[in-house]
Amino acid sequence: MKNQTLKDLGEAAIIRLIEKKAPLSSRGHVKKGIGDDAAVLEPGRDSVQLVTIDTLIEGIHFTARTLSPEALGWKALVVNMSDIAAMGGSPRTAFLSLGMTPDTEVIFISSFMAGFNAAAQKADIALAGGDIVATLASKIVTVTLLGECPAEQVIYRSGARPGHDVWITGFLGNAAAGLFLLLSEDAPDPSAYESLVLAHQKPMPRHEVGQALGRNRFAKAMIDVSDGIAGDLAHICRESGTGAVIQVASLPLSAELRKLAAEVNKDPLDWALHGGEDYELLFTASPADEQQILSLTASVLGIPAVKVGRIIDGQGIWLETEQGKKAITSGGYTHF
Amino acid sequence: MKNQTLKDLGEAAIIRLIEKKAPLSSRGHVKKGIGDDAAVLEPGRDSVQLVTIDTLIEGIHFTARTLSPEALGWKALVVNMSDIAAMGGSPRTAFLSLGMTPDTEVIFISSFMAGFNAAAQKADIALAGGDIVATLASKIVTVTLLGECPAEQVIYRSGARPGHDVWITGFLGNAAAGLFLLLSEDAPDPSAYESLVLAHQKPMPRHEVGQALGRNRFAKAMIDVSDGIAGDLAHICRESGTGAVIQVASLPLSAELRKLAAEVNKDPLDWALHGGEDYELLFTASPADEQQILSLTASVLGIPAVKVGRIIDGQGIWLETEQGKKAITSGGYTHF
Repeated sequence: MKNQTLKDLGEAAIIRLIEKKAPLSSRGHVKKGIGDDAAVLEPGRDSVQLVTIDTLIEGIHFTARTLSPEALGWKALVVNMSDIAAMGGSPRTAFLSLGMTPDTEVIFISSFMAGFNAAAQKADIALAGGDIVATLASKIVTVTLLGECPAEQVIYRSGARPGHDVWITGFLGNAAAGLFLLLSEDAPDPSAYESLVLAHQKPMPRHEVGQALGRNRFAKAMIDVSDGIAGDLAHICRESGTGAVIQVASLPLSAELRKLAAEVNKDPLDWALHGGEDYELLFTASPADEQQILSLTASVLGIPAVKVGRIIDGQGIWLETEQGKKAITSGGYTHF
Repeated sequence: MKNQTLKDLGEAAIIRLIEKKAPLSSRGHVKKGIGDDAAVLEPGRDSVQLVTIDTLIEGIHFTARTLSPEALGWKALVVNMSDIAAMGGSPRTAFLSLGMTPDTEVIFISSFMAGFNAAAQKADIALAGGDIVATLASKIVTVTLLGECPAEQVIYRSGARPGHDVWITGFLGNAAAGLFLLLSEDAPDPSAYESLVLAHQKPMPRHEVGQALGRNRFAKAMIDVSDGIAGDLAHICRESGTGAVIQVASLPLSAELRKLAAEVNKDPLDWALHGGEDYELLFTASPADEQQILSLTASVLGIPAVKVGRIIDGQGIWLETEQGKKAITSGGYTHF
């Protein structure tokens, strides 16, 4: 039926549709998935378990204009994979709670699941349960993701020490610039800046590099950059009882970001420092490990991680330029 | 500050407030709770893990009129405890995702957490993480609950066999009648029917009796009654490849339910068969275990479980009265 809605299909058939399209893991750790009161899992015997939960709400985190159904499915899982990656862990099992208006088209769910599946397959994640409820207006997507990690390889935010280098994978600010392109009335045509739009719509999961940094004990403190590097580095510093200096000249700004900033007369640094949703990994490490980190990250990611600052005694996040140092306030995304 | 809102308080302070009020477990299985990218848990070494997730949405599952903030906190956890109980498991660790409008008063969160805590303390559950997001209109509460159970004691929906008795804990229909009292314009004063209103607002967690029925291997199939016994028994039958007969005269209808039904000229059976949110346990068992089930459930619950029917060959759910048998369609609550 063309343009069939969830109301047309009915709850039981929606669940069967999701079940049919749910990713399965080859690991066999899901003894019972969708279809009972609770999922039954076989936890890893020599690991601790990692758990994270994240909600995306239409009108707040996304709109039909900023994310296609497929991109929403991808992103809903990847933002959680990013949290597991930031602990050095391996994502294993996902649970999906969907809130949808009854007039939502069935094709929305199929497309959403295609994106969700594509992300799940990057790390052999199983979807083992969830629920679906009707909403009055906005679409709501909550994913709970379970992962695991050998206990001694978990990387907390609290492990930073004065003298550590501060590293970042990938580029900063691209996702925020992409969102600007999608939302701003006077922005240039987004199709001219595909990499920025993609950074917002389809962030790459960083679980492989996160696991490698934990396994090799290179990362001493780690967090994923979801609210801008300034705010997320402040989280590390608060938990570690340290301060940090960011070297502005070292920040990895893409050529597209600089080009767009010039075209629209904005400071690319604002996007890089305070822009949200990069979902890159920010970590601290001993200077002695610099060469090994460069080659490890280059081999996993294709491009090496970048050293952007250092951990210092004291408090606060400082910005270091040729003109000297100044303190910055976090200014990251805040919900309230 | 009087009537302080979440917007006044700010995201970081809201999280600190929740953290301060979060239940901790005495079990020590939470190595890291709120405050990092993911929670870190020590899973039980000789158990499988049970996972469930449930979302309550304002305007769909509750309104300010039907649930106080405290009752919402209680119920958000108990509906998930009910799912773990229905597997025969022990609830251990909760994750809470809150969607709140910025003008929500801070006292709402404090009261919500008081109710959440009261339920958590019934089973020594820890709150180990979550997230909080702003919403445009409705409040949204999603709880993910992890539990555990020795592998051989997990009770699936699929274990019913012809010849089994069908049992139910507690009363049926009270919660639906309570909701009717709260919502219907021409209903009598709810304060005259306190037990019915309480059944809707403060369902009791059934984890202890669920665990006991699993440990003793009395329950062969089990489900929690969230959509009415007719629909939930149909789930057991579908998964088990059986049919079932419900003996109408055996259904546990409370005196208050009968009194209200008479007063408002309704059939109490409709509430009992198709009314939602009883959160009692529905299970099947061998007739040989009848006496032991009666004494076990009486000792755990104060009142014994009630035998309400039997599992049969074939398909469908049948209603048996003095006039004979007739098939019933489920008619349980459906979202779409």
